[in-house]
Amino acid sequence: MVERIQDVAHLGAVELFTPKPDRTVWFFHDLFGMEIVHRDGDRDSGTHYLRGYGDHAAATLKITPAKAAGVGCIAWRAASPEALERRVAAIEAQGHGLGWTNGDFGRGRSYRFRDPDGHAMEIYYEEVRYAPPPELRSTLKNLPQKFTGRGVNVRRMDHLALFCKSVPENRRFAQETLGMRLSEQVIFNEGRDEIGAWLSPSPVHHQVAYVADSAGAHGRLHHVSLWVDNRGDVMRAADILAENGVFIEAGPSKHNNSQGFYLYSYEPGGNRVEVYSGSYLIFAPDWQTVVWNEKERGTGVYWGATLPESFATYGTPVVEAPKANATVIDPM
Amino acid sequence: MVERIQDVAHLGAVELFTPKPDRTVWFFHDLFGMEIVHRDGDRDSGTHYLRGYGDHAAATLKITPAKAAGVGCIAWRAASPEALERRVAAIEAQGHGLGWTNGDFGRGRSYRFRDPDGHAMEIYYEEVRYAPPPELRSTLKNLPQKFTGRGVNVRRMDHLALFCKSVPENRRFAQETLGMRLSEQVIFNEGRDEIGAWLSPSPVHHQVAYVADSAGAHGRLHHVSLWVDNRGDVMRAADILAENGVFIEAGPSKHNNSQGFYLYSYEPGGNRVEVYSGSYLIFAPDWQTVVWNEKERGTGVYWGATLPESFATYGTPVVEAPKANATVIDPM
Amino acid sequence: MVERIQDVAHLGAVELFTPKPDRTVWFFHDLFGMEIVHRDGDRDSGTHYLRGYGDHAAATLKITPAKAAGVGCIAWRAASPEALERRVAAIEAQGHGLGWTNGDFGRGRSYRFRDPDGHAMEIYYEEVRYAPPPELRSTLKNLPQKFTGRGVNVRRMDHLALFCKSVPENRRFAQETLGMRLSEQVIFNEGRDEIGAWLSPSPVHHQVAYVADSAGAHGRLHHVSLWVDNRGDVMRAADILAENGVFIEAGPSKHNNSQGFYLYSYEPGGNRVEVYSGSYLIFAPDWQTVVWNEKERGTGVYWGATLPESFATYGTPVVEAPKANATVIDPM
Amino acid sequence: MVERIQDVAHLGAVELFTPKPDRTVWFFHDLFGMEIVHRDGDRDSGTHYLRGYGDHAAATLKITPAKAAGVGCIAWRAASPEALERRVAAIEAQGHGLGWTNGDFGRGRSYRFRDPDGHAMEIYYEEVRYAPPPELRSTLKNLPQKFTGRGVNVRRMDHLALFCKSVPENRRFAQETLGMRLSEQVIFNEGRDEIGAWLSPSPVHHQVAYVADSAGAHGRLHHVSLWVDNRGDVMRAADILAENGVFIEAGPSKHNNSQGFYLYSYEPGGNRVEVYSGSYLIFAPDWQTVVWNEKERGTGVYWGATLPESFATYGTPVVEAPKANATVIDPM
Repeated sequence: MVERIQDVAHLGAVELFTPKPDRTVWFFHDLFGMEIVHRDGDRDSGTHYLRGYGDHAAATLKITPAKAAGVGCIAWRAASPEALERRVAAIEAQGHGLGWTNGDFGRGRSYRFRDPDGHAMEIYYEEVRYAPPPELRSTLKNLPQKFTGRGVNVRRMDHLALFCKSVPENRRFAQETLGMRLSEQVIFNEGRDEIGAWLSPSPVHHQVAYVADSAGAHGRLHHVSLWVDNRGDVMRAADILAENGVFIEAGPSKHNNSQGFYLYSYEPGGNRVEVYSGSYLIFAPDWQTVVWNEKERGTGVYWGATLPESFATYGTPVVEAPKANATVIDPM
Repeated sequence: MVERIQDVAHLGAVELFTPKPDRTVWFFHDLFGMEIVHRDGDRDSGTHYLRGYGDHAAATLKITPAKAAGVGCIAWRAASPEALERRVAAIEAQGHGLGWTNGDFGRGRSYRFRDPDGHAMEIYYEEVRYAPPPELRSTLKNLPQKFTGRGVNVRRMDHLALFCKSVPENRRFAQETLGMRLSEQVIFNEGRDEIGAWLSPSPVHHQVAYVADSAGAHGRLHHVSLWVDNRGDVMRAADILAENGVFIEAGPSKHNNSQGFYLYSYEPGGNRVEVYSGSYLIFAPDWQTVVWNEKERGTGVYWGATLPESFATYGTPVVEAPKANATVIDPM
Repeated sequence: MVERIQDVAHLGAVELFTPKPDRTVWFFHDLFGMEIVHRDGDRDSGTHYLRGYGDHAAATLKITPAKAAGVGCIAWRAASPEALERRVAAIEAQGHGLGWTNGDFGRGRSYRFRDPDGHAMEIYYEEVRYAPPPELRSTLKNLPQKFTGRGVNVRRMDHLALFCKSVPENRRFAQETLGMRLSEQVIFNEGRDEIGAWLSPSPVHHQVAYVADSAGAHGRLHHVSLWVDNRGDVMRAADILAENGVFIEAGPSKHNNSQGFYLYSYEPGGNRVEVYSGSYLIFAPDWQTVVWNEKERGTGVYWGATLPESFATYGTPVVEAPKANATVIDPM
Repeated sequence: MVERIQDVAHLGAVELFTPKPDRTVWFFHDLFGMEIVHRDGDRDSGTHYLRGYGDHAAATLKITPAKAAGVGCIAWRAASPEALERRVAAIEAQGHGLGWTNGDFGRGRSYRFRDPDGHAMEIYYEEVRYAPPPELRSTLKNLPQKFTGRGVNVRRMDHLALFCKSVPENRRFAQETLGMRLSEQVIFNEGRDEIGAWLSPSPVHHQVAYVADSAGAHGRLHHVSLWVDNRGDVMRAADILAENGVFIEAGPSKHNNSQGFYLYSYEPGGNRVEVYSGSYLIFAPDWQTVVWNEKERGTGVYWGATLPESFATYGTPVVEAPKANATVIDPM
């Protein structure tokens, strides 16, 4: 057995593209209760940086105006300066590297690369410590920001799920080059078709999932997921979305794989967003990946509900013609 | 057995006096998430009428500027016009009546009276149906108003607890003249000292509690209580109060009598306010009042915590000299 | 306006028929955490009487061996001896009466009748107070029985939903003869087809629902519903059912009409059983029935999920041929 | 900056000494819902090995008969065989080592040592994978054991808190020799008196806390803590303990440091046991330890309650004479 690389600490930030930046910011700020910490450009058409009240980093969600919805740069934080150098060397050795940047808002120099499917990523270590303005200081010394009680009030960025053409290729990259643990897998057709992989650099169940894109496209987003502390908060989120006319695609309910308690909706720009709680932590260093086949997986919902067809096919950017006879899979 | 009178339907509205009307309105609107439906006078010094998102009546809480904190008029809704006439006749026969008024905001003619301890009350039947403005319309047809997700977001007025000099006298008035069920009692000294009584006109455990005032005063308020649907919401309320520097006197925890799940704080004007959930419903028409003595009552907290001294003595208006050797009792 | 009759206090007890009495008792005792308080006959083939830990009556659920699943006698408790006499007179005047019995386990003389659809019912006032054995005494003086923490641990009988051929006829009987409030209705085809009615004798939203039987049959049961205090308990129930191989038909999720938080499964005998929480209380004496049409009703699920086809058609006893072109409706 | 050692994966198992083994096993099995997986010796006087339904290891709690309550061996799992060797070398270099053993039930060879205060510990890598008997197999493929729904039903071992004479000495050992992160500290008297330290080898907030023992003793236990998934489950646990006559020392409530949601009781043998949920995860590799002084710490309870005197002084084994003028501190 080779020791697992522990060079990636956690998912740092996610950038979302949106054709309706003002409405997308409304969604995350007014409904989800995130704070706007920085803006480049105008209020309606600029780029916004947001955070959950429990996020350690200054900003974990970047909203960038674009012609179409989708995911921009996905940033991973390294565990140390040395870990950063090691990962950059490994990425370059794999031929996935793009080069160094001076870093985005809130972080220092970052190394840009693409995963095999083409999603933009970067890895960095230096981070600006968040200093809340007086009105956002918490009375809890161990909370980086006040719990405001506005709307859904998500606590922090949790994970994201990416559509890709080849799950094995991207899964191996995450395991071997980034050093993640493979927590669970969905494999159909007696082991022939790898449909989904859930990976994490830490005891958290997954911070990235790769799921087969039935449209045969590249670089698409399935969903980005924000954490709340209790299943009751997920249900409260459902009430808030329903009261504000936001379409709920699925949930609140409980997945069988990951045991995650989910609520899926679309932000006004079109990206699927999850409010998430539950799941389980994995501490065992010799974790044996849990593999689900068609029969074991069932609908993917532990309590027996079904997920809508859209859940298997819809991603951003939206693509026109789904591949005929594609294997349709419900990712999570 | 005589059939129980069922002429009072429910607690209609509570008026609170406050020396800091602007801050009291901030407390109930911004933190508790209630809506302001009407105002008489200025924004800072006027009288405000508020409602919880699930309240059927247009307004259930009236905030009235005054020199000192305390409770104003407590309004009870009759079950029918005939029931109103019957109760008025009974109240007048007891010599407690004050006479008819044209009604306050949101309700028709009302009959004013005082309970034996001197608290101002009224009874009415006619009520204006609440019609929310467009931005407060719920997507749920059976919800009178949108669930906004702002702060504690209390659902409705639930009950109030009144200090009084003689619990038996006021308790009998509530039972015999208003027709309430006596759900629970606290009686000390081998049955000699009646310390508390919890009464209700409906299956709800109590809508009014009478508690012995150790200060020997009259007409004081112990607390007014607002309902949320889950114990998780009470804990969320505690976080919101703590983040906003609001003093928490006790809770969240669970009373043994009433089984209520409580959180007590003071609004800026000084009145004690409870966020409340749990408890239990009483359907049995031959309910046998549950009576607690000193030993059974213990601290009044089911899980073993203690309530602070202030909980037994503090009421509004604040009075100077508590009676020496007074029996101190923790009401709920 | 005529004053509403307040002669029925609450739903007293429900009898279920089962072809698998031993498994049905296992379901309610081992999984649902109810206690067996009485048995007539053998352990495997006898009639069992059960209770929830918070039920005031000695027994609220009767399990009776039978050839087919279905509902037996539905017992209503009168508010007083006089109320009982008044209701019996009204029932007899309507021609629905069957006559007096000496009462079932735990209650005194009862008057038997049938609702217009033919469901067996009775009304009674005298009730034996429940006295728990030492091992089932609660440390809470206001709790009739110990909270054991076994399985789902339902608190009390809440309501039942009955299939019937004519909703209007049965709904009027419940309103006019039994004196219930009509809380909500579902009416399709521009007011022509009354599909469902939710009725209650108390502030509880409904204790009986009448729903159009698409099979055109008589006397069938849609479901019986047991209460837990929190939505978290409903989700815990879902985990327990799933772990024990019990089929979950729908939920946990939230209905739009009634706002009830539901979880539907079938007990081994075949009857649909709900674990239930949430909903809302109705205190207003002039409550205006909330009426839903096709469009407003949607799927009947507030957060957007759909209910399975079986939910609209399956009832007990199971009948062979559903009526062609029947209007299919999701009751609750 | 030196890279943090990541050689310890997690807390593996805790051994409790008890003078009443049969009652202690009843507590953890019947009330807490843990399973007995192995026993050495008689049912009443033997050593028992237990597990929570979500524990990955076969056994995480060992109940050992002894003359007095207290903590036995605390086992840490290494991240790899190489990590094990590195930690053993470091421990030996510090002079704390005792030597190799063949391992306890469920794990392979283990290296025994003592922390500076004298608590027995061991570190190991090899672990036997848990294989549940048929009746304990879960329907969830990613759950090592069935969720039985019995009693409190704790999910897994979470952490423990140890009394010690010198917090700095033991804290440094945990940081430097075992490689843990120092999440939070309590330091009184303007930085002179280190009263408590919360440490963890993973993003979980703490898996061991060191707290100053006001009795000046060595090797004592403050509490062992078991995890449930929701705050609602902690409250349900409180109801179960209260119904079974188990003394509740404090909670359910929320600590300010750690943000943990706690419920403290004593198992029949005398050891303090916590049911725990909430808290927060720490992902930042450059986490800046949160330090609380007297004023910031307050009562240690976020919502304002106080902890009883016993919480600061009681530990196991019980010692006779507390040191005069000892600094009393509420650990967590």
